[in-house]
Amino acid sequence: MKQGPVVELVAIGSELLGPTRVDTDALTLARALEGLGLALSRKTTVADRPEPLRVVLCEAIARADLLMTTGGLGPTVDDLTRQILSECTGIPLRYEPKVERAIRARFAERRIEMPENNLVQAWVPERGRWFPNHFGTAPGLVFEPEGKLIVALPGPPRELEPMLERYLLPLLEERFAQEERVLSKELHTAHVSESWVDATLRGALSGFADVEVSMLARPGYVDVWLSRRVPRGAATDERLRAAHAAARAALSPHVYSDGEETLPMAVGRRLREAGKRLAVAESCTGGLIGAAITEVPGSSQYFLAGLCTYANEAKLRFLGVPEALLVEHGAVSGAVAEAMARGVRAATGADYALATTGIAGPGGGTAEKPVGLVYIAVADAERCLVEEVHFGGGREVVRQRAVAAALDILRRFIMPFQEKL
Amino acid sequence: MKQGPVVELVAIGSELLGPTRVDTDALTLARALEGLGLALSRKTTVADRPEPLRVVLCEAIARADLLMTTGGLGPTVDDLTRQILSECTGIPLRYEPKVERAIRARFAERRIEMPENNLVQAWVPERGRWFPNHFGTAPGLVFEPEGKLIVALPGPPRELEPMLERYLLPLLEERFAQEERVLSKELHTAHVSESWVDATLRGALSGFADVEVSMLARPGYVDVWLSRRVPRGAATDERLRAAHAAARAALSPHVYSDGEETLPMAVGRRLREAGKRLAVAESCTGGLIGAAITEVPGSSQYFLAGLCTYANEAKLRFLGVPEALLVEHGAVSGAVAEAMARGVRAATGADYALATTGIAGPGGGTAEKPVGLVYIAVADAERCLVEEVHFGGGREVVRQRAVAAALDILRRFIMPFQEKL
Repeated sequence: MKQGPVVELVAIGSELLGPTRVDTDALTLARALEGLGLALSRKTTVADRPEPLRVVLCEAIARADLLMTTGGLGPTVDDLTRQILSECTGIPLRYEPKVERAIRARFAERRIEMPENNLVQAWVPERGRWFPNHFGTAPGLVFEPEGKLIVALPGPPRELEPMLERYLLPLLEERFAQEERVLSKELHTAHVSESWVDATLRGALSGFADVEVSMLARPGYVDVWLSRRVPRGAATDERLRAAHAAARAALSPHVYSDGEETLPMAVGRRLREAGKRLAVAESCTGGLIGAAITEVPGSSQYFLAGLCTYANEAKLRFLGVPEALLVEHGAVSGAVAEAMARGVRAATGADYALATTGIAGPGGGTAEKPVGLVYIAVADAERCLVEEVHFGGGREVVRQRAVAAALDILRRFIMPFQEKL
Repeated sequence: MKQGPVVELVAIGSELLGPTRVDTDALTLARALEGLGLALSRKTTVADRPEPLRVVLCEAIARADLLMTTGGLGPTVDDLTRQILSECTGIPLRYEPKVERAIRARFAERRIEMPENNLVQAWVPERGRWFPNHFGTAPGLVFEPEGKLIVALPGPPRELEPMLERYLLPLLEERFAQEERVLSKELHTAHVSESWVDATLRGALSGFADVEVSMLARPGYVDVWLSRRVPRGAATDERLRAAHAAARAALSPHVYSDGEETLPMAVGRRLREAGKRLAVAESCTGGLIGAAITEVPGSSQYFLAGLCTYANEAKLRFLGVPEALLVEHGAVSGAVAEAMARGVRAATGADYALATTGIAGPGGGTAEKPVGLVYIAVADAERCLVEEVHFGGGREVVRQRAVAAALDILRRFIMPFQEKL
């Protein structure tokens, strides 16, 4: 299998090593690379001090076919990128009067006097291109030692993003459009454990050594990506499609989506298609299910109301849960979950109802009803289904897992019969 | 100034090189290091493939006095950190039955069958410590080759953060305590803009060049840290305290906390202290306010119910909002926000009520009522206060800003008179 080019990113700036700054440039550049079929193999963040920076840049140039740097192109003594890239590549700098004119024009336009040190930004690589900066004073710099491409970009996103769009992307397309690119397909599952998904995929994909599998678990969800290198022109791939179908069959019915559709969107689409409306009664999830359903634009078409009946008196008053049931079984019980679902359906006139009651912790658990115990009920005119589940993790994780489980139980409950086959 | 130890971080995981994931662990660890007077000199993010990972880890071990890694300790074939650190340090792994018991107990508690591959997590460094994981199955691993300290931490923040607090910080304190350290104090504000906070602090702290200010904005909130280098023994610092008081005075009354207390906790504490109870009626926020209030353990003491009356008929039915009002003013109006707050108070018997109605977008806006327009009402027995706010950003950002604003308006509404002075 032919390997793609080695692509690295070096982010320069002590502030990026501190506790408050998120490197959004790295996310922007990763997205752009993805579109070209390229992926970062390493990202290094380094302080703007000469010695560590020199070491990091010289090593990255030795390894990479394409190196992008962000930051360190300003006019102050801290800004070392230009000089050190020149040293590491052996490509000298030359003074470019066009850049000087652009810098002077920028200050004139803003009616600010230009500090002389800004002119350091007019030095660009000899025998190299530079990218005009339409939103700042530092041009982008292109060094091309021995067939490699080294591009230094300014750090501020409002300067980097337009420069990327207008100048860097066309250059990357021309130089690195891949003979091979990576096609990938996704599967999204809810209310399962990462180790179950892993073990299931190992079995299902044992005949697909040429397909790469990666997983990302977040509370309540496991996302799966399958990817395979294919020739440049190919828009689809038979092997990838076969692996995806095998993975899907093995993980079904826990797969709610194989694309951009989130679990709340998947639930909403089924409700909209069926012309049905939903109401929710929440206790331990405290409003999170309503919040998840209404994160989807247009959810007012199918979402009637969510009653977060945290106190028992609210369960009585709004849902008509009989007091005797609360006394006999306790608020956290299958019987009360069922009464909540039936109650919110009756109170709102919804077609479907979903209810949760549980112990999110950290307090409130007993030996019989431990923290993490949640009852989920789903009801329509004929049926009411109650599921008892046990979740690990702290309060927020228990709540998030309960939301994912409840939405997935609802999704399967309302799934059209033919889709289940 | 004496040079400190060389501290590096290696974040392991292909997903951290993609366009969507922010490495919050790196921010958490940078904050912890700052408290010890230490700073990262380099941070490397690398894919979870054997070859680049081996190179990155062996090189980092050669350079660093202290190396922390995050991620790659899971039970799957992608998880290579344990094995490669063992190879790079030359320190073999041994099987630790205590870890096996903890893993088995964790699965048993959740009543899930343990996949056999989870037991790979019971391998720990020979002659090395390991940190128990109280929120997951992968222990933290400590390798100590030739006077260096190499610590492998699990990637999920809910596992990493408690492990850092309880096990890693005391070890770092013992091994790397500096002659100088950084003391810092925080202020947390809601329902303000970052540029207002920035401008206000510039004015208030003009006499404090020795105090460093950093800010972190997230939708609806701006967090402020003030920090100053002090000699090792100092537990407090007069200059820092004076700067903090000046900043607080300038930003008040938008400051809801100067410590760990979140905005929902600040609201809850006031309700609990006053022995009052709260009900919420939500429209555009869809349950997020109820979810925020109930993220606080013990919130059942003061939270009665949240009614997410998404459809107009639910506003009529559960809140008694007059149909004429909906027709005359529209659902998104100050009059309807007020009727929702008064209505939910009456329906639940709560002391305080909070209501939101707005246009989160992307559709539904008009010239007169654009996307981002939200009305927030807060009521008690005597008063009802309505605020009209306009938020920028996409649907989720508008909703999050509305939640922060609503909670902050409620906080100020119920603030005891003496606290306002």
